[in-house]
Amino acid sequence: MSAPPARITIKDVAARAGVSKGAVSLAFNRRPGLSEATRERIFAAARELGWEPNLSARSLSNQRVDAVGLAICRPARLLGLEPFYMEFISGIESVLTEHSCSLLLRLVRDLDEEVALQARWWRGRQVAGSILVDFHEGDPRVPALKDLGLPAVAVGHPSLTGDLVSVWTDDATAVAQAVRYLAALGHRRIARVGGPLSLGHSGIRSASFASTMAELGLDEAQQIATGFAGEEGARATRTLLLSARRPTAILYDNDIMAVAGAAVAAEMGLSVPQDLSLLAWDDSQLCRLTHPTLSAMSHDVHGFGAEVARTLFAVLAGEEAVSHQVPTPALTPRGSTAPPPA
Amino acid sequence: MSAPPARITIKDVAARAGVSKGAVSLAFNRRPGLSEATRERIFAAARELGWEPNLSARSLSNQRVDAVGLAICRPARLLGLEPFYMEFISGIESVLTEHSCSLLLRLVRDLDEEVALQARWWRGRQVAGSILVDFHEGDPRVPALKDLGLPAVAVGHPSLTGDLVSVWTDDATAVAQAVRYLAALGHRRIARVGGPLSLGHSGIRSASFASTMAELGLDEAQQIATGFAGEEGARATRTLLLSARRPTAILYDNDIMAVAGAAVAAEMGLSVPQDLSLLAWDDSQLCRLTHPTLSAMSHDVHGFGAEVARTLFAVLAGEEAVSHQVPTPALTPRGSTAPPPA
Repeated sequence: MSAPPARITIKDVAARAGVSKGAVSLAFNRRPGLSEATRERIFAAARELGWEPNLSARSLSNQRVDAVGLAICRPARLLGLEPFYMEFISGIESVLTEHSCSLLLRLVRDLDEEVALQARWWRGRQVAGSILVDFHEGDPRVPALKDLGLPAVAVGHPSLTGDLVSVWTDDATAVAQAVRYLAALGHRRIARVGGPLSLGHSGIRSASFASTMAELGLDEAQQIATGFAGEEGARATRTLLLSARRPTAILYDNDIMAVAGAAVAAEMGLSVPQDLSLLAWDDSQLCRLTHPTLSAMSHDVHGFGAEVARTLFAVLAGEEAVSHQVPTPALTPRGSTAPPPA
Repeated sequence: MSAPPARITIKDVAARAGVSKGAVSLAFNRRPGLSEATRERIFAAARELGWEPNLSARSLSNQRVDAVGLAICRPARLLGLEPFYMEFISGIESVLTEHSCSLLLRLVRDLDEEVALQARWWRGRQVAGSILVDFHEGDPRVPALKDLGLPAVAVGHPSLTGDLVSVWTDDATAVAQAVRYLAALGHRRIARVGGPLSLGHSGIRSASFASTMAELGLDEAQQIATGFAGEEGARATRTLLLSARRPTAILYDNDIMAVAGAAVAAEMGLSVPQDLSLLAWDDSQLCRLTHPTLSAMSHDVHGFGAEVARTLFAVLAGEEAVSHQVPTPALTPRGSTAPPPA
């Protein structure tokens, strides 16, 4: 009896087509992310080798899944108040549209709910992959997504996102640059109004703020953690401006809080930037629409969303996607920063 | 030969359970929108009558579709700049979450692309129903959605939305109220900065503005149509303030353009409200974060989105959903409106 012929596997097809096994699987599952030419090459290789995918697996896969998932863990009311997410989503959509893909969007109450949702989306073939945001220390999504095998891109610092492919901004460097700039203008009492400390990136910014202040010998660092809404930024600004040692400069974690801070200064009879310097973050159109215009750590949030989506399509295509940074938020001085009052 | 027994139909099941045929179909298709009790009553009625749904139809329907579609016809970049949609989507999400439903979001280039997309979503069982926005005169989605049989709720005036169930705001009345208020303060040169005239609701507001101005004998009505972005509002405001007969009051179609208008006034050395009154629309948190705060036609956009989603669930449940208004935007005077300079 002769030896049975070696069984042709997906690996052989991948090798012949010069692609990864993941790409072969994508082609046969009619998932997005491959060029027409690559798809054709894979089908040709499979025909030549007489290979076809496991039929029971294929019966589940007769339709391309053309949606990408995004779960956001914020109360619905707050989501509408935060310019960041709308710009981020608009950037994601700009890339999804090129791939005829839609965004499956869901608000969740906590990360455990998100883990369950991602499992349902993936098993129900509702998403081809997901974008994960707002990482915490010891985030339960890191091991859960790995177990699921759901293709995903994490938006967060690699120290928080484990083995997931991540796209991130260097918040620590940007905060340090902001503090150094205000210090160079002559400010010594600099305060920061930031996001909730449970969020990994708020923690990174907070630590960088404290260490840069200490490095510069400016040891009176005051920081207030809020929830990102304008009203909270206003409240935090009032608290700071009423404190015994009033800061002469305030750094905010987004721009709506900085706009609110400028209104609080006006309401308290303080001139910006003569009496008080304000430095915003993210730099949506808001910063250019106020008078004076707001200095900001500019962050192309739309471009960030687009890069995250492009990275997810690379992951879906079985390409070697690696974690990488988008450009660090850059200082854009405008009308709200100046030397402190003499 | 005796007559064959009358065939039991879905109509009999619906009658026995005391619900519509649509509700029976929902229960067997495992779609959202029914209470557990109703679902149970329907299954009990079907068991008692020995009815079961057509199997070939059911084989497509073995899984509840727990997503609702929303296509928006705006360039991605502009979407991120418009607070309206984020608040509207946050309101939709607040209701979807209660029903364990996600929002399938897609940007489209034009209405024909949206028609094709809705057909694909519906035939591919990616959505249980859709929310349609930004209606035009003679909108192609009205006949197309009817042909598809896709459950939908239209956001727009019934004059634009045909047979679709619609949820709408009475923009004509709100504009008239805004003009009457400014006229009551003594303004005679009132201008309006609005959205693109291709949008049905911009046309309605524009017509109401012109007719109310004429009614009050204020015949110098200037209107500029823009694309809703802050920069466009700033440009339109500069044009108006440089015109030979400068307006003493400006009504805006959203709030970001009004914020931009306030900055333009400051940049041109005009005091708000002493030299120039500004009246915003929608009234997101922005209007309360500027100094002076902005008077606005307040519109609970989050609540509007929530009501639209609730109406869609009523349609999905086969209830008798009827077109209805949400509360008319109401005048909220704040710090940006006053009598004109003497």
